[in-house]
Amino acid sequence: MTFAAPITVPVALGDRSYDILIGRGLLAAAGAEIASRMPKARVAIVTDENLARLHLPTLAASLDAAGIGHVPVVVPPGESTKSFSHFEAVVRAILAGRLERGDLVLALGGGVVGDLAGFAAAVARRGMRFVQLPTSLLAQVDSSVGGKTGINTPEGKNLVGAFHQPDLVLADTGLLDTLSPREFRAGYAEVAKYGLIDDPAFFAWLEENWRGIFAGGPEREHAVAVSCRAKAAVVARDEKETGDRALLNLGHTFGHALEAATGYSDRLVHGEGVAIGMVLAHDFSARMNLCSPDDGRRVKAHLAAVGLPTTLGEIAGGLPDADRLMALIAQDKKVTRGTLTFILTRGVGEAFIARDVPPEAVRGFLAERLEEV
Amino acid sequence: MTFAAPITVPVALGDRSYDILIGRGLLAAAGAEIASRMPKARVAIVTDENLARLHLPTLAASLDAAGIGHVPVVVPPGESTKSFSHFEAVVRAILAGRLERGDLVLALGGGVVGDLAGFAAAVARRGMRFVQLPTSLLAQVDSSVGGKTGINTPEGKNLVGAFHQPDLVLADTGLLDTLSPREFRAGYAEVAKYGLIDDPAFFAWLEENWRGIFAGGPEREHAVAVSCRAKAAVVARDEKETGDRALLNLGHTFGHALEAATGYSDRLVHGEGVAIGMVLAHDFSARMNLCSPDDGRRVKAHLAAVGLPTTLGEIAGGLPDADRLMALIAQDKKVTRGTLTFILTRGVGEAFIARDVPPEAVRGFLAERLEEV
Ligand SMILES: NC(=O)c1ccc[n+]([C@@H]2O[C@H](COP(=O)([O-])OP(=O)(O)OC[C@H]3O[C@@H](n4cnc5c(N)ncnc54)[C@H](O)[C@@H]3O)[C@@H](O)[C@H]2O)c1
Ligand SMILES: NC(=O)c1ccc[n+]([C@@H]2O[C@H](COP(=O)([O-])OP(=O)(O)OC[C@H]3O[C@@H](n4cnc5c(N)ncnc54)[C@H](O)[C@@H]3O)[C@@H](O)[C@H]2O)c1
Ligand SMILES: [Zn+2]
Ligand SMILES: [Zn+2]
Repeated sequence: MTFAAPITVPVALGDRSYDILIGRGLLAAAGAEIASRMPKARVAIVTDENLARLHLPTLAASLDAAGIGHVPVVVPPGESTKSFSHFEAVVRAILAGRLERGDLVLALGGGVVGDLAGFAAAVARRGMRFVQLPTSLLAQVDSSVGGKTGINTPEGKNLVGAFHQPDLVLADTGLLDTLSPREFRAGYAEVAKYGLIDDPAFFAWLEENWRGIFAGGPEREHAVAVSCRAKAAVVARDEKETGDRALLNLGHTFGHALEAATGYSDRLVHGEGVAIGMVLAHDFSARMNLCSPDDGRRVKAHLAAVGLPTTLGEIAGGLPDADRLMALIAQDKKVTRGTLTFILTRGVGEAFIARDVPPEAVRGFLAERLEEV
Repeated sequence: MTFAAPITVPVALGDRSYDILIGRGLLAAAGAEIASRMPKARVAIVTDENLARLHLPTLAASLDAAGIGHVPVVVPPGESTKSFSHFEAVVRAILAGRLERGDLVLALGGGVVGDLAGFAAAVARRGMRFVQLPTSLLAQVDSSVGGKTGINTPEGKNLVGAFHQPDLVLADTGLLDTLSPREFRAGYAEVAKYGLIDDPAFFAWLEENWRGIFAGGPEREHAVAVSCRAKAAVVARDEKETGDRALLNLGHTFGHALEAATGYSDRLVHGEGVAIGMVLAHDFSARMNLCSPDDGRRVKAHLAAVGLPTTLGEIAGGLPDADRLMALIAQDKKVTRGTLTFILTRGVGEAFIARDVPPEAVRGFLAERLEEV
């Protein structure tokens, strides 16, 4: 098979800079890409059972062909794998594989595998090289870019981890063909988010071209590349999330509260919470007279068109009341010394960080929306 | 009580620079020091049961007086506390204490507590501020300087961890009065090491003044300050241990093998292994015609004078043969792609990194020394 040349998105982080390659066929080319960039390195491949079945053989063959030694480390699929016990198991498997500091950890999987493997790479031998081979749309446009890694504990999601930049990201868009439609749509919510943050032209392009992304046309590589570029630009400005990296949380404050309210279950996957949260963020911004109600309607229409939920009413099972949702919002880790931070917007592609949103206004807005359910 | 003003040793690491304060009475002054440098921060105090009994009340009173909120996290004393399970417990206790990213983790203890608490600080909320209050001589002159943190696994010692620089180190030399004589001597081996690496005048000063250090005279603060300055200079040149930070391993390649051979037990504590290892490093260097046999005799005489072991014969119980010791040396993590690295010397204060020492020469030297036992 021959494929179009991959798109390269550079991530500029000084001496931690690296490239993201985007295109079909990169899994089979992984051995050659790694051999040319990191000669002599051996590889621990961290992956989950689904990917091990579907795509590990291709990767292993590619590494073999390039003469790269490798050991597989397979974990169960699912968010509950981002735990201390799996973290310990992965770290110890890397050490037991006798990998040295110049060797590398490769994540073949979605955000769960990427976050877990990246954290393991950050601490095994106090920091090993790391390559991401993201296999879900969410991982290709979001979690594999930016260097955040981590696990969950009973105290909260993603509260334990490290900033550890990869040395290389290979986003093989062909792998998305085996992703479930629901997971694909969930990842698409993050793609749309980049348009809504600061790129109205991209959002308009998505409104026209989303079918090509889902169908696997060249629109897919373009959308992944625009998304990676957008996230990389934010990350380059604010690597450790002390400032405007917070813009990436558009829709996430509401979304996280809804995920928590539904027990992080199948009832609502992350991207679905983000979709509803982005519509709520636009509607709430209109309520605060920051943008027009038409903006919220437009966002809602597009997300609904691709099949994402956009209203509280679409969440199966009951939701808690506004007070409880507010408590969940206040628990969100982006709270700094008691003041709430929200990402609001002046219109499509004009999001901004609002640090002093009155909590009563949010509570009243949510109470109203819950009544409509 | 009034004390002499503390000595300040700056550690120059760009935007991660910080100060080490050295002097008597710093424990009682900790609240004021922290309040002036990190206003409003709350503190998780990680300590072991021995320090909790002896010195935690003074620290707690000092923080209370400065209006700083604090939660204690107490672990058992001893090397086995540097484990994944205690690591998880400490991280979760920090999160359960609801500390935020600007709050800080404080280590009150020896190297075990410092390494464990520092690693927890590196990963809780993807990195919290960190203050060291080292209480053993080894911690004051070595482990609290340089930002290496970590834990042990069955695969090896210190193979899991992070580079996480503290924001402040308070070395209260008065706390060393409660340290056991054996632990004090073990820490002293590391002090002597700084003279042997590149400061012959300091080594000569130690030969004259060591009694004041043990007795708690002003020589103690001077020796801690010279040691911290020496380590800080190496760390500033090579923060992530890719180059001449390896000099700090003088005596450690032999020492680690002896620690492993004695099961990391009471038979030989780390500093004792280092003392014997430094004598072996000088003797082996003389054998290689790099320095004079007199250098080894001088090092041995001084270390023996303070009560440290200096020969294999002083290790209680049997030792394995030279082949087994060589295997332990080869397993040491400072092995890079199969070649052994040794720190050798051209004389007192003239250590250097030797990358191509013939393994047979080392084996022959060890076999001879074992026969003398
Ligand atoms: N580090 C970051 O910056 C960041 C950003 C956003 C999200 N995240 C994290 O990402 C995680 C979610 O990632 P996700 O949505 O990729 O979930 P996931 O990794 O659980 O993948 C979803 C499911 O799809 C399967 N799958 C993945 N790729 C496949 C493929 N090509 N073919 C068939 N099946 C495939 C997986 O086995 C899994 O069952 C969360 O834990 C979240 O916290 C991290
Ligand atoms: N991070 C680094 O760069 C670095 C460098 C060297 C060593 N280390 C690590 O340091 C550890 C050894 O440190 P250590 O020798 O301080 O051991 P330690 O922390 O176990 O302390 C030794 C014993 O002395 C007790 N103690 C400490 N201070 C006391 C005091 N003031 N009064 C009474 N008792 C006191 C402790 O409770 C413990 O029982 C090892 O795990 C080693 O790997 C780390
Ligand atoms: Zn998201
Ligand atoms: Zn040492």
